[in-house]
Amino acid sequence: MSAHLNAALREGDNPELTEERRKATFDTRKLADEFFGSHLARRRREIAKAIDAIPELHDTKPLPFMTREEKVEEAARKVFTLSKHITDIVDLSNNRETQSLNEMVIGIEGMPISLHFAMFIPALQGQADDEQKREWLDRAIRMEIIGTYAQTELGHGTNLRMLETTATYDKQNKEFILNSPTLTSLKWWPGNMGKSCNYAIVVANLIIDDKLLGPHSFMVQLRDENSHETMPNIQIGDIGPKMAYNSSDNGFLKLSNLRIPRRNMLMKHAKVQEDGTYKKPPHEKLAYSAMVHVRSHMITQHAMLLAYALSISTRYSCIRRQGYIDPKKDEVKVIEYQTQQHRLFPHIARAYAFAFAGTESIRKFEIMKRSLEAGNIELIADLHALTSGLKAVVTYLAGQGIEQARQACGGHGYSMASYMGEIYGVGIAGCTYEGENLVMMQQLGRYLIKAVKSVKEGKKPTGYVAYLAHAGQRHSLIDCRPNEGYAEHIRAFEHIARRQTFRAAERLQKYENSGLSTEQAWNNCTVELNRASRLHTRLFIACNFYERVLDVEDMAVREVLEDLLHLHLNYELIDIASYALEAKKIRPNAVSLVDSWEITDREHRSVLGRRDGHVYENLFKWAKSSDLNQNDVLPSHKKHLLPMMLNARKQSKL
Amino acid sequence: MSAHLNAALREGDNPELTEERRKATFDTRKLADEFFGSHLARRRREIAKAIDAIPELHDTKPLPFMTREEKVEEAARKVFTLSKHITDIVDLSNNRETQSLNEMVIGIEGMPISLHFAMFIPALQGQADDEQKREWLDRAIRMEIIGTYAQTELGHGTNLRMLETTATYDKQNKEFILNSPTLTSLKWWPGNMGKSCNYAIVVANLIIDDKLLGPHSFMVQLRDENSHETMPNIQIGDIGPKMAYNSSDNGFLKLSNLRIPRRNMLMKHAKVQEDGTYKKPPHEKLAYSAMVHVRSHMITQHAMLLAYALSISTRYSCIRRQGYIDPKKDEVKVIEYQTQQHRLFPHIARAYAFAFAGTESIRKFEIMKRSLEAGNIELIADLHALTSGLKAVVTYLAGQGIEQARQACGGHGYSMASYMGEIYGVGIAGCTYEGENLVMMQQLGRYLIKAVKSVKEGKKPTGYVAYLAHAGQRHSLIDCRPNEGYAEHIRAFEHIARRQTFRAAERLQKYENSGLSTEQAWNNCTVELNRASRLHTRLFIACNFYERVLDVEDMAVREVLEDLLHLHLNYELIDIASYALEAKKIRPNAVSLVDSWEITDREHRSVLGRRDGHVYENLFKWAKSSDLNQNDVLPSHKKHLLPMMLNARKQSKL
Repeated sequence: MSAHLNAALREGDNPELTEERRKATFDTRKLADEFFGSHLARRRREIAKAIDAIPELHDTKPLPFMTREEKVEEAARKVFTLSKHITDIVDLSNNRETQSLNEMVIGIEGMPISLHFAMFIPALQGQADDEQKREWLDRAIRMEIIGTYAQTELGHGTNLRMLETTATYDKQNKEFILNSPTLTSLKWWPGNMGKSCNYAIVVANLIIDDKLLGPHSFMVQLRDENSHETMPNIQIGDIGPKMAYNSSDNGFLKLSNLRIPRRNMLMKHAKVQEDGTYKKPPHEKLAYSAMVHVRSHMITQHAMLLAYALSISTRYSCIRRQGYIDPKKDEVKVIEYQTQQHRLFPHIARAYAFAFAGTESIRKFEIMKRSLEAGNIELIADLHALTSGLKAVVTYLAGQGIEQARQACGGHGYSMASYMGEIYGVGIAGCTYEGENLVMMQQLGRYLIKAVKSVKEGKKPTGYVAYLAHAGQRHSLIDCRPNEGYAEHIRAFEHIARRQTFRAAERLQKYENSGLSTEQAWNNCTVELNRASRLHTRLFIACNFYERVLDVEDMAVREVLEDLLHLHLNYELIDIASYALEAKKIRPNAVSLVDSWEITDREHRSVLGRRDGHVYENLFKWAKSSDLNQNDVLPSHKKHLLPMMLNARKQSKL
Repeated sequence: MSAHLNAALREGDNPELTEERRKATFDTRKLADEFFGSHLARRRREIAKAIDAIPELHDTKPLPFMTREEKVEEAARKVFTLSKHITDIVDLSNNRETQSLNEMVIGIEGMPISLHFAMFIPALQGQADDEQKREWLDRAIRMEIIGTYAQTELGHGTNLRMLETTATYDKQNKEFILNSPTLTSLKWWPGNMGKSCNYAIVVANLIIDDKLLGPHSFMVQLRDENSHETMPNIQIGDIGPKMAYNSSDNGFLKLSNLRIPRRNMLMKHAKVQEDGTYKKPPHEKLAYSAMVHVRSHMITQHAMLLAYALSISTRYSCIRRQGYIDPKKDEVKVIEYQTQQHRLFPHIARAYAFAFAGTESIRKFEIMKRSLEAGNIELIADLHALTSGLKAVVTYLAGQGIEQARQACGGHGYSMASYMGEIYGVGIAGCTYEGENLVMMQQLGRYLIKAVKSVKEGKKPTGYVAYLAHAGQRHSLIDCRPNEGYAEHIRAFEHIARRQTFRAAERLQKYENSGLSTEQAWNNCTVELNRASRLHTRLFIACNFYERVLDVEDMAVREVLEDLLHLHLNYELIDIASYALEAKKIRPNAVSLVDSWEITDREHRSVLGRRDGHVYENLFKWAKSSDLNQNDVLPSHKKHLLPMMLNARKQSKL
């Protein structure tokens, strides 16, 4: 183990980076413990070591050099290989451990069993009855079959009520007839459905005796378990290349009056009896729980993607020398420029703030789950609103931060050798999947408007919206903690968020009073409402960051986190304020702050972000392996460009 | 010709789009005349028709389905084919005609002769003496050889003074010895250098008698003219995949003491005589002229890329129905949502504003060129500052607009079938190439600070900085034109830009007074200075838009442009103001405004943006052609996922 405070320091590294690491004022291992939580931080180190020792788990060549077919094959190869080792490496019951393993081995571009674990198994756990679980769940967990979850259609995503796929019950034969009646009813986008899965849970509109009963879930076998060929009455395929995630075979599915047994409808909640009698599910809101779960985990995932990008860009900014601040001295590291610091440091602060917000929402989810098991559904709405806002704000700001970090790498940031383009593509997808961000903002908006109404009725809302009742008061959410000097910042934040929420609510009221329908009035206010939702969420992130820092025991770690908190609160509040002072405090620790994320080279897949800083020699190596360099003269040259030039030379001699 | 005001309307189109087009309040052909200028608008229609008739100029399959090798070959094939037809289709002396042809046929992802026309030929024209022109320029124009311009190195881009490639003059042999002495001195990034070109103009630091004389240009033969094999003492190759532009073979180049004749140095300005006597060039600033030229054209190119994205997204937003505003009515087109309008319409206004700014800066460039030929170098500095600002602001805001337009397409915007990801990748590259944006902002910043100093000395600067002298006055740049109701907006804009510029200047002064060196003081103010540069540039764009609209003669076209101007001025000024009223005015013309860009389907390469609106059936067709769909069962399935499942099933039976 390194004797240095910065554990990433090694002999033989690029001296530019070593110089940075020697400036660390805190132990990077201890800051990693705060960022990940100490258990996960330790396990990540152990997982990285385990992978190092198993060559068949390493990339066969850089992912950007692969075609889609090769990417899909590479991911399948790794999944198979991992299946032999996984129980030795991680505790399968720990989501975040498994995710870390996958990110290190397979990467962020997708893999054939993503949806199997993220949606297929949870859907079986949540919606199958005990008998169905025995039939499918155990086989799924043992990986005897691979499944996905098919909900979105070519023509509909957000508005589930309008899904066009039908499941019509046939009493005679005690079967459901699944059908895609229109072009736009084709299932479209489900991950791994194109080529990898042999089963899918298909969401279809249930029809019994010509009565439409809304969306329900059905188990459908897509492919033969042995030959893997498509089953009859099914058309299935890959939907083609995407902006990123090209290791994943997102698929389409057309069902042509496919008959499945009655018991293939998942029947834990709703039921259809043999004679066609329909039993409604007891709680409609239970479905929220799965969404809240997925969104909570999206926060930590996006904090990590942002960390990837910042770690690459910050290290590279300390290696790249270009231009002068003082023309009499040497060229400076580009990180010395105020503009470069402005580009990177507020996002470093956000990466920490987002990670803490993610951990907190996962913690709240666990509390809610327990209270749900005790029959209490009260906490769902609260957490649903919070995670909707966090999902939208964090995915958007993380995307912005990744792109700024990429541009901060200059020209080389545009090369896939930096891997930054891929990280952006994967990160920005989060703005769209699992609920389009503007729709998310409106869900939180509805919650905020409700809270305003209750304040106006003289009630005092609790939890995250308590500050809405504090207008004109000196009280603050933060006052429950010892005042550490930032209570004023938080109060200002609360004030701005509260003012915007009330402003949106009043505008809404005005439109309603003018005779517009509630819905029309709402649509006229959504820009204002979304702004309120955004401010509310950023207030939560800031408060949570503040409270989190107060809990840190190691004084050196706490000090650097306070520097980041200070920068964060000022940046978020003033956004464009000058903060030379704060940047100066962050600057010496810049590399150590990103080293504390302990992202392995294998995970980074970035020539610019290498821990050892040997960037330029490895860029050259990387370039030489380009598929275009396998021949000195491209075979196509003799077909096109050479004849063009020869024609021209011949003509000029005429 | 269509009898409708909207010329894009055809029978058999998706009725959702036809409904939109019937609402047009102006003639889309006439608005196209304003956007492109009437000559180019007409020529684009004729070019599109000519291409339609030549099948070998069409894409052989969607570009996103091609590997890099296929993309590079496809571009070479089209270049060769075009070389046989080009003089029949366009006037080669007209840059923008040729560019339109290339965009329609080859597309935006690069091609083997981009740098040949953009840099190699102009460099010969600008830097070769008459004898050298006879030797190389004529051959280059006739396409007997293909060249590029090799300046950027692995370790240096922005700071040209530190280029490490050397050209040492050997008096004995009357030759230059070109060398890449370090790893970081490798030429890196030049377009088409990897595989396509056989010549390059290489920028190297000239050394005579151990004296360093700065960067000069040298003609270097890279490959044999017939076999195309790499010449001795040269190592050359492709630098690998990038975020976009993957049809282009950006290259690296290592020179190992390569000897070239003395006369291979381009000698129009600087000269080296046989005995090693060196003659300095007369004007250092002449090099600016080429940069100003390239940047002026970047403005119109990025306006066009933004137009591509908005045209796709606006059309698709009128086809996609999802959710309700009034739950008693049908699902609405997503463009009806206030948030969707907020996402698209201000960017539509910007696309027009940027196009007008681009045309204006090309016009100013032509004026400057003529005055330069008359020996007057006064206008260069002005135009250099303006185009630096425009390059940075327009590429950044265009990138943002493209990404917003992409996200506005929801899930399908993430599929490469929309082509939006590629447009973003190409557009956002503009923030980095031809001068990194933050560096550009500082060049304008220096100019603004100079102007402030002259104002403080009681002088009245003219041209684009005149408003800096107007503090506290009711005068405005715009007052020279009849007041059309927006003078107040412009005055407010001027006020904000002026205040920020003075604020930055005063802060700079304060740091200088405190004893910091000018350079240190500057580095402490760059965030403030860049903000001033940004505001100055946005003021120019707004003023120019305003003045441009006043010149429009067709009343219906002028009215819709005034709607856009109104939106633009308010959006830029208030940024987050609510503008329901203005949006309502834009809404009925939304599709017609983007149809006025007359972007052909061939050019769009986007399933979502098709003129006929038949999106969903063509998405299905596109997906079925994915390389992953050529076999029902992927060959790799039997290697990895099937054995994994079989193992699992075997074990569970044990």
